[in-house]
Amino acid sequence: MIGRLNHVAIAVPDLAAAAAQYRDTLGAEVHAPQEEPDHGVTVVFIDLPNTKIELLHPLGEGSPIAGFLAKNPSGGIHHICYEVEDIHAARDQLVAKGARVLGDGTPKIGAHGKPVLFLHPRDFCGTLVELEQA
Amino acid sequence: MIGRLNHVAIAVPDLAAAAAQYRDTLGAEVHAPQEEPDHGVTVVFIDLPNTKIELLHPLGEGSPIAGFLAKNPSGGIHHICYEVEDIHAARDQLVAKGARVLGDGTPKIGAHGKPVLFLHPRDFCGTLVELEQA
Repeated sequence: MIGRLNHVAIAVPDLAAAAAQYRDTLGAEVHAPQEEPDHGVTVVFIDLPNTKIELLHPLGEGSPIAGFLAKNPSGGIHHICYEVEDIHAARDQLVAKGARVLGDGTPKIGAHGKPVLFLHPRDFCGTLVELEQA
Repeated sequence: MIGRLNHVAIAVPDLAAAAAQYRDTLGAEVHAPQEEPDHGVTVVFIDLPNTKIELLHPLGEGSPIAGFLAKNPSGGIHHICYEVEDIHAARDQLVAKGARVLGDGTPKIGAHGKPVLFLHPRDFCGTLVELEQA
């Protein structure tokens, strides 16, 4: 079912410092910050030859990553995102297997403008998994 | 400097359960466990179209992931691995930029039989970064 690893998302306490570290120290291709007010984050995309890294920083009140950064003040990997062909078929298959989909199970439009779902970390090795319809 | 994302490594408390979850629930291509006694882990490789996931479980005494699992009993993402062309040149560039290389700075032969280094998580957004000479 799952296809490509779409991205690894890293929550960071200082977006400018993290972007500089990836650009200047690791020599990666780092884009300008993009505010995603609907998702409560500012994102810096980093292009690797085969996938992307996304640096996430809270934006506005009630950001979904504020709690994570409170627990992990130096930052850390927040989630990984796998691509699926059909998000509804993927959800039905996961639920049939007993996996827990976060929220009400309805795909939302994610930061890339495509339908996404999040799966419960306890069902996937302590890892928050995002599925994105490719 | 960094190239492809070689793999995402996830430490898991129950290797068989995690492998089954990726194979049966997520429908991924999951390989048989491989013992890596020199690295203190048993590894399950999962092939995605563009990269790999590696499930890690402690093997023997003093496994390098035992402490991580003690702190994260459900498991979690342990490190991410970026490819570099020349591990010694990468190390020298990183040290010149003030990044900390773990250990004595000498590349070791990693689980894929290639030279690797690990970078200090505090310098990279709370994320343990492995560099592997591709």
